Amino acid sequence: MSSTSKASERTRQSRALTVGPPFRIGLLGRGTVGSAFHALLEQRADAIAVEAGRRPEISGVLTRSQGDFDDILERSDAIVEVMGGIEPTLGYAMRALQSGKHFVTANKQLLSQHGEELYAAAAQSGAQLGFEAAVAGVVPAIRVMRESLAAAHIERVHGIVNGTTNFILTAMARTGASYDDALREAQQLGFAEADPTEDVTGKDAAAKMAILARLAFGAQVGLADVPYEGIEHVTADDIAYARDLGLSLKLIGTAERIDGGIAVGVYPAFLYGGHPLAPVSGSFNAVTIESPAITEITLSGPGAGGSQTASAVLGDVVAAMSPPAVQAPPAVELPIVKDVESAFYLYVEVADRPLVLSKVAEILGMQGVSIKSVVQRGAGDDARLVMVMHPVLESKFRAAVDLIERLDLVRSKPRAIRVIEEVFE
Amino acid sequence: MSSTSKASERTRQSRALTVGPPFRIGLLGRGTVGSAFHALLEQRADAIAVEAGRRPEISGVLTRSQGDFDDILERSDAIVEVMGGIEPTLGYAMRALQSGKHFVTANKQLLSQHGEELYAAAAQSGAQLGFEAAVAGVVPAIRVMRESLAAAHIERVHGIVNGTTNFILTAMARTGASYDDALREAQQLGFAEADPTEDVTGKDAAAKMAILARLAFGAQVGLADVPYEGIEHVTADDIAYARDLGLSLKLIGTAERIDGGIAVGVYPAFLYGGHPLAPVSGSFNAVTIESPAITEITLSGPGAGGSQTASAVLGDVVAAMSPPAVQAPPAVELPIVKDVESAFYLYVEVADRPLVLSKVAEILGMQGVSIKSVVQRGAGDDARLVMVMHPVLESKFRAAVDLIERLDLVRSKPRAIRVIEEVFE
Repeated sequence: MSSTSKASERTRQSRALTVGPPFRIGLLGRGTVGSAFHALLEQRADAIAVEAGRRPEISGVLTRSQGDFDDILERSDAIVEVMGGIEPTLGYAMRALQSGKHFVTANKQLLSQHGEELYAAAAQSGAQLGFEAAVAGVVPAIRVMRESLAAAHIERVHGIVNGTTNFILTAMARTGASYDDALREAQQLGFAEADPTEDVTGKDAAAKMAILARLAFGAQVGLADVPYEGIEHVTADDIAYARDLGLSLKLIGTAERIDGGIAVGVYPAFLYGGHPLAPVSGSFNAVTIESPAITEITLSGPGAGGSQTASAVLGDVVAAMSPPAVQAPPAVELPIVKDVESAFYLYVEVADRPLVLSKVAEILGMQGVSIKSVVQRGAGDDARLVMVMHPVLESKFRAAVDLIERLDLVRSKPRAIRVIEEVFE
Repeated sequence: MSSTSKASERTRQSRALTVGPPFRIGLLGRGTVGSAFHALLEQRADAIAVEAGRRPEISGVLTRSQGDFDDILERSDAIVEVMGGIEPTLGYAMRALQSGKHFVTANKQLLSQHGEELYAAAAQSGAQLGFEAAVAGVVPAIRVMRESLAAAHIERVHGIVNGTTNFILTAMARTGASYDDALREAQQLGFAEADPTEDVTGKDAAAKMAILARLAFGAQVGLADVPYEGIEHVTADDIAYARDLGLSLKLIGTAERIDGGIAVGVYPAFLYGGHPLAPVSGSFNAVTIESPAITEITLSGPGAGGSQTASAVLGDVVAAMSPPAVQAPPAVELPIVKDVESAFYLYVEVADRPLVLSKVAEILGMQGVSIKSVVQRGAGDDARLVMVMHPVLESKFRAAVDLIERLDLVRSKPRAIRVIEEVFE
């Protein structure tokens, strides 16, 4: 058989696999992601038909000004929601899931604030709820947790789940730029919105960590359970000083089991060079999942962009074409632990370093906080005290910082930033 | 409702999800991985029952000296093979798949040498063939390619898929140790076998790249299609010189689309600092998958160890409990491209550097090879010429090296190592 006829024979065999009816998708939203999804779908529909046995096609498009949801729902096997916001999307999601139609979304606010309603509706009707695109751009954290690690006991998840803040912190580290200048650069290059509040305050990352924590631990965690701090108060000095200690600064989301409960939060944190998230730079996202059996897995890739988000949505659509291996069981109740042990970096501007150092050391010692290393900077009136503590309960460290702030020779509000030590100490 | 009674209510709800009959697993092999799998299964069976709706249990164990395969097959829903080798495992695999039983294996040789038979048998009976554990330890490269990227057009895969060689190269870079010393250290610490041949020659990585390439491109690629070079001839000098150029050395597997065909290979290669695989150190594995829609995803984690491999196997077992979203279509035919463009590092020991440099430059120029940078090392009789070329077809570069080797003033066989430039240039 010639190579050409062999190839067309293969093509016939492949085509013969396409047996099912079309898989009809109702698309809610026609912005950047919606348009990118529509384009990607058209481009990949034939290949998907070969692999998944059904050809996906758009059955209707709804925007805020056009289209009728009931009509589209009626004509669809799955609804793809890339509109954003809670209203009217929550109503659409519930109606889709309740009527047994799969629902795929890139909407982190919807999932992190109304996840339990959506999970319950999906479980009841047997429809699938896909939200890979809501969490870490193109990084397949959800699928890996749901499937590859379905059989694993997850102890901890660390994530860089906001590309805007990682871009800004990377720029500050690289050029020594101030926060304001780095933000402006990010805005000019399209890595930050005109109003960057959701990103730079950590709220966006908190929503994503709530979703990841719900999956990792099977426990009810919503946005309201996730305390978050942003990067607005980080200075180029902090980054430069910490570099001397081998540390790099990231906006880190954490979700971990502690003392029979769980702790979830988002804050700027210094990472040691050996941490798997330390090399993640620019607008990239990454998630490290730790479990005793596997040690750790790290997944990284570009944060959300139109075509990346569209690709993650399409992956969920393909998955929805057949039943999932694993159903999310109802959530268990695990207490949320608020006071967590951590190492800390502390920066204090002081009038007289030797004198202040002894006072600061005394206060720290009384609270049971032990100093790991001290970096000497400046001299005389312009002196700064930069130090890193061994891990300690946050409440004890904060109590010590309050006392330090009241010392006469301290010239400014002390700055404290968490330090994340090795994975699996 | 008190918190305790709420919790037990939840537990009841969860338990109520377990409805199906047990999922019976026939285990072939009871070595390190087999024992770790058995232990992990017992530990996680209850949690899996809640999530997947069936409780997995071992229905029988076969070793080379004990047990009857037919009897075990009869009593199993899936066969887990962690015995290794081609015989008798290939026969077991075919009989399991032909009788509609799922087959999960950690056996890279089996998949890379007999993949097409196994894929075809699975497609015919509808049984699932799981081999996540065969490729990159705990790194879920197979699942991400099969599912998250089912809808993506994959252009290129780069992998560090052998932990032994990455451990050795990391040790050489860190301490300046020779290859022999670093190998000995790896053996003492359990990261290299007493006979490390399969690992250090690149053969192990070649088998894994054949499996990844088959999945990435849907094209028939077997171990015989993958040329490989090992790390036995790498010197500490190469690593030290290249560091001055911002390069780090890894044993890299590549699989990429080129000119309507594909090229797959394994060789030591220098990576620029910005490459996503550059920070992967020690015995870790990592895979970078590139596709226009997603740019790239990188997955990393520990290379194979008993409990890691067991965890990957168990993930496949859970997946086999329900039908897959995506069936592997029959392979298409894509020509294997042998002569691929690459940048190269070249190391030559010379008697008189200025004279040789001009001769070498002349030879390179005649073959169309252009020099990107030159590092000057040593002097007089002990001089070395270290340079990096711009990308060029390998055949042209090799022709130039043959001519350079014949120059009178060249004192040793030139050493050439590929250099991998940015992802998505």
